[in-house]
Amino acid sequence: MRRIAILAEGAFEWHYGKTATGVIRYGKDPVVAVIDSTKAGQDVSHALGAMLGEGIPVVHDINEALGYQPEALLIGIAPMGGALPEAWRWQILTAIEAGLDIISGLHVFLADDPELHAAAGKRGVTIWDVRRPPAKNRVAQFTPHRPGSHTVLIVGSDCAVGKMTVALELDREARERGLSSVFAATGQTGIMISGNGLPVDRIISDFVAGMVEEMVLDFTGQYDWVFVEGQGALNHPG
Amino acid sequence: MRRIAILAEGAFEWHYGKTATGVIRYGKDPVVAVIDSTKAGQDVSHALGAMLGEGIPVVHDINEALGYQPEALLIGIAPMGGALPEAWRWQILTAIEAGLDIISGLHVFLADDPELHAAAGKRGVTIWDVRRPPAKNRVAQFTPHRPGSHTVLIVGSDCAVGKMTVALELDREARERGLSSVFAATGQTGIMISGNGLPVDRIISDFVAGMVEEMVLDFTGQYDWVFVEGQGALNHPG
Repeated sequence: MRRIAILAEGAFEWHYGKTATGVIRYGKDPVVAVIDSTKAGQDVSHALGAMLGEGIPVVHDINEALGYQPEALLIGIAPMGGALPEAWRWQILTAIEAGLDIISGLHVFLADDPELHAAAGKRGVTIWDVRRPPAKNRVAQFTPHRPGSHTVLIVGSDCAVGKMTVALELDREARERGLSSVFAATGQTGIMISGNGLPVDRIISDFVAGMVEEMVLDFTGQYDWVFVEGQGALNHPG
Repeated sequence: MRRIAILAEGAFEWHYGKTATGVIRYGKDPVVAVIDSTKAGQDVSHALGAMLGEGIPVVHDINEALGYQPEALLIGIAPMGGALPEAWRWQILTAIEAGLDIISGLHVFLADDPELHAAAGKRGVTIWDVRRPPAKNRVAQFTPHRPGSHTVLIVGSDCAVGKMTVALELDREARERGLSSVFAATGQTGIMISGNGLPVDRIISDFVAGMVEEMVLDFTGQYDWVFVEGQGALNHPG
């Protein structure tokens, strides 16, 4: 458990801020502040207009967020194309210099950015690029799952329609009923929430099926119910 | 037009040698020899048991192939996983030292291999890694095609069932009928045949749809009929 501040500058709302809202709702780590200067002064539930995150402040910038003693800064929005908006750089550098770990789901890897890499090394903090694909490649082998295990894949007609949320809710309900269940993350927000998973959209397409098969086999070996977050759809630009 | 020798060691037959047979059947460049020591002494039509490649010799190794004055060596099989079998290395090195360009569709990029890279640089020949993805990334933008143009995507239930061949035959027939037509390659063999295209299975999955959209838009701007080679299928391990 570590205290998280979320950077969602200019985008803390349901659609473009889905990483932020997903982590606030389902994450294991407590969120102590959300950075969005356009909604500073509100609390999360007010900013979202929902019963979620009451008492969590929305603040103006990283300097204000540091007042809430965060231990990590999570990049809470994923711009189309996944690059780092340069306007965010100073906030990330400030967080690193204050000793915060960085958690990022951007396509561009912050740990490969010379300035951020050097700053993190100097301060001894880690940069977790959630979307970095595994070093190994693998094609599918059509291996049967463990008999008695159940795998449920959630698919949808577009992005941001709730595939991850449905998988998380089904897993939560199954565990509340005492079943052996797990959520299998395939996107950056799901990986941030569960702490592991596969960044499917960052994997070379030839190896997507094989890498997902390997993850699902690993989970079906350990759990009776595996709820797999789906990715993409016919209406999805990626 | 350049004279091509094809390396298909141990695999010059229809299924595993589909790159070799595709290039012989549809390529613009003349094939002067095929290397497969297990079928050396036959000609292509005899080795394949088909009316294809009569008079093209199957030879024992690169040294014998050099007798037919090739200008390029094309790696004619794509092992599962796409790595370079080490047993082929000396033949590729010998080709480079004899001044041949190298054309490869392997997942591993021969131009990144220090030994092959150095040898090619020293001899001034080029290594074309057909599967190297474009440097740019792009998500789909749902842009309409030029009115009046027709795009046909060939899909199939498995790999090596003839998706590329159907697309090539439709394009050939259309051109014979005087239509403005083009074949849009999405795999390494198709790219070798047409001289351009997109190595879809090597592209990061998030960008596949957008990169294909861009290619198809480019073609529909120029041609009335665009026959797009399909990739993958539910039964395909990739």
